[in-house]
Parts: sequence; C-alpha cells; structure tokens
Amino acid sequence: MIDFPPVIRNLIEALKELPAIGPRSAERIILYLLEENKGTKQRLIASLKELETKITLCSRCGFYSEEPLCQICQDPSRDLLYYCVVIHPVDVLKIERTGAFRGVYHVLGKKISPLEGHTPEDLPIAHLIQRIDKEKPREVILAFGTDAEAEATALFVSQILKKRAIKVSSLAMGLPAGSGLEYADSVTLSYALSGRREL
Amino acid sequence: MIDFPPVIRNLIEALKELPAIGPRSAERIILYLLEENKGTKQRLIASLKELETKITLCSRCGFYSEEPLCQICQDPSRDLLYYCVVIHPVDVLKIERTGAFRGVYHVLGKKISPLEGHTPEDLPIAHLIQRIDKEKPREVILAFGTDAEAEATALFVSQILKKRAIKVSSLAMGLPAGSGLEYADSVTLSYALSGRREL
Repeated sequence: MIDFPPVIRNLIEALKELPAIGPRSAERIILYLLEENKGTKQRLIASLKELETKITLCSRCGFYSEEPLCQICQDPSRDLLYYCVVIHPVDVLKIERTGAFRGVYHVLGKKISPLEGHTPEDLPIAHLIQRIDKEKPREVILAFGTDAEAEATALFVSQILKKRAIKVSSLAMGLPAGSGLEYADSVTLSYALSGRREL
Repeated sequence: MIDFPPVIRNLIEALKELPAIGPRSAERIILYLLEENKGTKQRLIASLKELETKITLCSRCGFYSEEPLCQICQDPSRDLLYYCVVIHPVDVLKIERTGAFRGVYHVLGKKISPLEGHTPEDLPIAHLIQRIDKEKPREVILAFGTDAEAEATALFVSQILKKRAIKVSSLAMGLPAGSGLEYADSVTLSYALSGRREL
C-alpha cells in the first residue's frame, strides 16, 4: 500500500517515541513541518543539538545546568542552611515555582524501586552525605512525593541523616488547595486530620 | 525566578510551535529527551534534516516524493483514465488507504478561500488543465471535502473541466459508516436522503 515516503515515515517513527505524541499527532506535526517556512525545523534541529551537547547536571546539586554550577548554586543569596532533597532534576523547578523556598537543593536522581531493581544500596546517597558533612545544613527537607516508593526512600534517607544529628523533615500531606472534602480519598483525609493546625 | 536553562527553554519554545503540543507536553518531551539514551535525539535531528532537504512534491501529481516522480506516478499498474483531484498532498494518502481507487492523483495545493485571500484566479489550475489535455482521462473525481470553501472550489473547477467534455464527479455525501441517525445533522441527512440507493 502507498504510504508517506521513507523520510517522512522515519520522522513519524522518531516523533512517536516521544511521550504525549501518538500516530495522529505525529502526522499533524509532519504536515505542519512540511508546509511551514518560519524556521521551526531549523530551530528544532539547533535546540535538539544543543540539548545533546550543552546540558549537564550541576556538579553540586544535580539540577540541569549549562555550566558546572547551576543558577541556584551560583546565587549568593540562597540560604545554605536549608537543603531540599528531591528525586528528579525537574522537581527543583516545581519547588522554585512556589517561591516558598530560598535554600539550596540536592537531586537524588532515583528512588528505591523494587520493580525497577533499585535497592536502597543503589541510592546515590554518598554525594549527599559528603555535601552535608562539608556544608553542615541546619535542616534537610525531603520532598519526595507520597507514593510507596517515595516514602520508602524518605524513610531510608532520613534514618541515615538522623545519625548526623540534623533536623530532617518532609512535605506536609493533606487536602490540596482549592478542593472540597468530597474529592479527598480517605488516606489523604486521615493525614489532613492528624496534621490539623490550630487556628 | 529560576527556570530551565536557556537551551532547554529554546527547545520548549520550538516544540510549542508544533500543533498538538502545549507547554505541558513540551516539558514532558524535554524530560524524556534529557533522560533517554536510545538515540531518539539523533534520529529526530537526522529525520528533520532529511525532511528539509529530501522531500519534494511530485512534478506530475504534487504528492510528497523523494524523487521527481512519486511512487504512485511511477507505478505502471495505475489507471491513467481516472484522476482524483485533491486539495492537500496528504489527502492522497487518505484516499489510498481506502484501497478503493486505482487511478492517479492531482494535488491542487489550495482551495478558494476569501478569508485567506485565495480567489478563484489564484487556484493553480493551469497545470491540471495541461495534464488533462495531454493525458485525456475519462473521469475526474473531485475529492475536496464538504465545507463551503471546498464546495466553491469544486464548482469552479468542474465548470472549467466540463468545457473539455470530461466526466466530472465528486465524492458522495451521506451518513458516515458505523453511525446512527441520531448523530447526523440535518444537512448531512438531507444529502443522504437525496442520494438514496435502491436495494
């Protein structure tokens, strides 16, 4: 049966490997790229190449960076006494966008995950301990999410850090903002109850 | 406020120009590309470059091709007596995938569209007439869709072709396959009625 020429089929296949792009979206994107002449293709090629060559992880905290130290670690106004430990580099942005944290970060890189074969021993925790021993923060906030794997990771990391007599905390659990009780599951609700605040 | 490094932001902007990709999908794609090492980035770069340099339009029918003549025009088993005229190159594939047409195609490239400033005089119809005068098909099927602009285009093209004593037809209108009457609008239904077939 007649199909797109091989070059177009190759691009469709490459696009379909990306998340959030199915066969239909891939075709729509191709048709757009075939007809556009605003330089989108060139911009895509250039930025994909740069992504490949220029982006590294900050040597101190592990966030995305184009230099050995990321923007945050280069910022002298950040409070080195507060660490926020996250699992993925993008989690740093999630916290930054709240505007509620002025400390520094540490990206762990992975969590304990029996399904993916990540045991507690696989956690790259040596670098975190090295940093803590050197920089001596006052508090380490574990911002790991609330699935079972994230909670196991938090438990494991907190046990190690507590031996060093550092305050270790984790994100509060409770009702999400702008939501009614009717949407909350009972586990969330029980956390919201036990973590209730006096008004 | 801290954001992704500039290289990543550039790629997000380029991705957001594509159809079907919003800010969230662009971020998901970036995160995938940052962590994958299966060569997806290289495949994307390579196929985007090839799309730019290798794809042209068939000199005879206007379908996408990597050679001067497309796969269909190169196929000696196609019936040259039947033309199917479509508006966009991708429409050729839509018809091909039905398996119900063994003739050849002609891509018009645009339709009459007052909003986009395309008058009947702008239609690139000279090449079609040239081909018809040379190849003398028996029937020309106009497969243009059923919006007002497509119908105006069909009317205009058919008036020109009929002066050449060629049979001109257009796609049937009626109920779509696998659908009940309750989903059909009344215009579609009136076409389905007037085009009824004896059983």
